[in-house]
Amino acid sequence: MNPTQRHILTTTSTLLETQGLHATGLNQIIQASGAPKGSLYYYYPGGKDELAEAAINAAGELIAERIQAELSAHADAAVAVRRFVEAIAEQVERSEFQRGGPLMTVAMETASTNQRLNNACRSAYSRIHSAFAARLLADGWDSARAAMLATMITAAIEGGVILSRTHHSAEPLQVVAKQLAELIQLSAAPPHG
Amino acid sequence: MNPTQRHILTTTSTLLETQGLHATGLNQIIQASGAPKGSLYYYYPGGKDELAEAAINAAGELIAERIQAELSAHADAAVAVRRFVEAIAEQVERSEFQRGGPLMTVAMETASTNQRLNNACRSAYSRIHSAFAARLLADGWDSARAAMLATMITAAIEGGVILSRTHHSAEPLQVVAKQLAELIQLSAAPPHG
Repeated sequence: MNPTQRHILTTTSTLLETQGLHATGLNQIIQASGAPKGSLYYYYPGGKDELAEAAINAAGELIAERIQAELSAHADAAVAVRRFVEAIAEQVERSEFQRGGPLMTVAMETASTNQRLNNACRSAYSRIHSAFAARLLADGWDSARAAMLATMITAAIEGGVILSRTHHSAEPLQVVAKQLAELIQLSAAPPHG
Repeated sequence: MNPTQRHILTTTSTLLETQGLHATGLNQIIQASGAPKGSLYYYYPGGKDELAEAAINAAGELIAERIQAELSAHADAAVAVRRFVEAIAEQVERSEFQRGGPLMTVAMETASTNQRLNNACRSAYSRIHSAFAARLLADGWDSARAAMLATMITAAIEGGVILSRTHHSAEPLQVVAKQLAELIQLSAAPPHG
């Protein structure tokens, strides 16, 4: 991916994250990215859906990589998840509550109205789920329990981002961070050693 | 509120829930509701924002009432929350994943772009939070703990709806139902009696 293409994609991601798919027009992407109209259609001949699909795929990959990297920084899974969610709370606050949850608005806008983007959102959420589950599996949780916890972690983070952005406060995500850590700690302790 | 007014509002709520604010035009509301254009502007002279605000307020009140009513059907708070979330899972599935989470798409679309609707979403989420917290307080949880659990319950349900609608599966919400019940059970048991 060359710099122009990457810049168009990053601009699209930001707009989708801040305001959703339907509020984001190709003209706004062109204006915000400063890319010539011709290059947008050259790299993304399928227009807005193709661009949105690429942005969703990129977001899913990026988040899964971040989960893998940031969770591996702590020996204890509960602490790792807590710190990960607290970092999201800080980022959402730093963005003045304009950013956070790059998938969810598009996911909800397209869940039953746009099969192509619904499929992209499914893949992205599956990647994120797998990244959380992989850490719990590695720590000795059984696969059913790891899958359940990974679903709960993903859901609570997405909902926490909604509440933090809506209330313009880091607090809901900070609460989610603590409660997820408690749930992981209190849930069947994995057999160590 | 007369039947025409209520019908316009219900149609608006359904469209906001299914596809979000920006995808929903006044013409679609007029067409879907069958209401004459004149009556829409008569009841909602402020147009789409005023209609959306009324729909968000109505959704917040309705959900808070449902929480109060459905949670009071079970003596145990963990069971009550679990059944409540399982009922949402069934409704989302019955709607063929087109419905569920009437607030969140609009909340995310407007969190930093429309102060009027952001305020409406805050009030609605606060009402929902208070309804969950009230049940926990009544069961003997202290107020700080009840507030934290209510945030976690609200967040996990919203995220569960996102995952269920995206994956076209009731399973994520069913997992959230179980995990929330565990968290409530395992968290500091309230002093009874």
